[in-house]
Amino acid sequence: MAEFTLHCFAESGNSYKVALLLTLCGGDWKPERVAFFGGETRTADYRKVNVMGEAPVLRHHRPDGDFILSQSGAILIYLSRRFGRFGHETEAEEFEILRWILFDNHKLTGNTASERFMRFFRKKVGDPAAEFIYARAKDSWRILDAHLSDRDWVAAPRPTVADISLCGYLFWPDQIDVNWNDYPAIARWLDRIRNLPGWAPPEALMPSGL
Amino acid sequence: MAEFTLHCFAESGNSYKVALLLTLCGGDWKPERVAFFGGETRTADYRKVNVMGEAPVLRHHRPDGDFILSQSGAILIYLSRRFGRFGHETEAEEFEILRWILFDNHKLTGNTASERFMRFFRKKVGDPAAEFIYARAKDSWRILDAHLSDRDWVAAPRPTVADISLCGYLFWPDQIDVNWNDYPAIARWLDRIRNLPGWAPPEALMPSGL
Repeated sequence: MAEFTLHCFAESGNSYKVALLLTLCGGDWKPERVAFFGGETRTADYRKVNVMGEAPVLRHHRPDGDFILSQSGAILIYLSRRFGRFGHETEAEEFEILRWILFDNHKLTGNTASERFMRFFRKKVGDPAAEFIYARAKDSWRILDAHLSDRDWVAAPRPTVADISLCGYLFWPDQIDVNWNDYPAIARWLDRIRNLPGWAPPEALMPSGL
Repeated sequence: MAEFTLHCFAESGNSYKVALLLTLCGGDWKPERVAFFGGETRTADYRKVNVMGEAPVLRHHRPDGDFILSQSGAILIYLSRRFGRFGHETEAEEFEILRWILFDNHKLTGNTASERFMRFFRKKVGDPAAEFIYARAKDSWRILDAHLSDRDWVAAPRPTVADISLCGYLFWPDQIDVNWNDYPAIARWLDRIRNLPGWAPPEALMPSGL
């Protein structure tokens, strides 16, 4: 049995964040498909494992028993500590990483993922709620672009789990309706992430939930 | 000078989370009013302090210089460690707290605060985007209510910063259009929080941003 099982699906950028970190760290892990589009996360069985009804869920098969964790941001911090990679070196970096992971969840991924779901998967183009969320997603991209205008990585002089969290949905520009040329600092930063040894796109790491 | 300055305003539930923790811990702090409704968080000066353009911002006046931190979830964890209160005792609790703070930011506060802003402050009742976000807020309240149905506190057998984060907007039932009798486990949990020694409502702790 692999050391880590990740309940995930390829269309989930939140799942991708964890799959990418496990891959970059050379972790011993295997994906377990969540049939998201068939409604699996809304079933009573799934809610028993994760009351929040979301993917991903990590199972770390430890000698003292399975450790189960949801929320990509929490999982990223847990794994960065386990692997001793992509984490902080100082207290200031620790909280800089944490605040960007929170901004990602609250604003950037929060709006980008909702906007993509409505636009790309539900085809609600022109829907007032979809347009409202799209405008908020663009706000969050502008904030990230401004932040990256004079630095290479989000929270430290090297890549951390803050970068891995924030990029989760950004390698699908057509699906989220963005041209990264309009956000040049984000474009350069995504290239830097793509060039990390071992980088792979979501579809290469996880099975489809469709 | 107080040990902590909190840039905040009374209408901000995210500011309230930090103000409440500082108060429950008996911290030496003072609020510094953010003129949110006058647009202060959108100014260049404010963005220099916090590129995310949000309140609250904590300034901890330390002997080694001011430590500045934004994002209520990061501030709560920072302060719980400083005070040795409302934090974790085990690694499992540490990550349970973190995943609920992330859920709060991503879903519960994320949607509740947006819904309140549109409904109560912008009077956009019936607006499709407001109704969409209201439905999502209700989803997150149902998840929290289910989680609290068989426990007193969110992430440990005692109150933690996860509780303090999640309750940030929930003492304004009229403003978010909810009757907590419909969510009985949340109602009982809010009573437990109200009974913590030193508890006070937002308006008693911070100046208005109006």
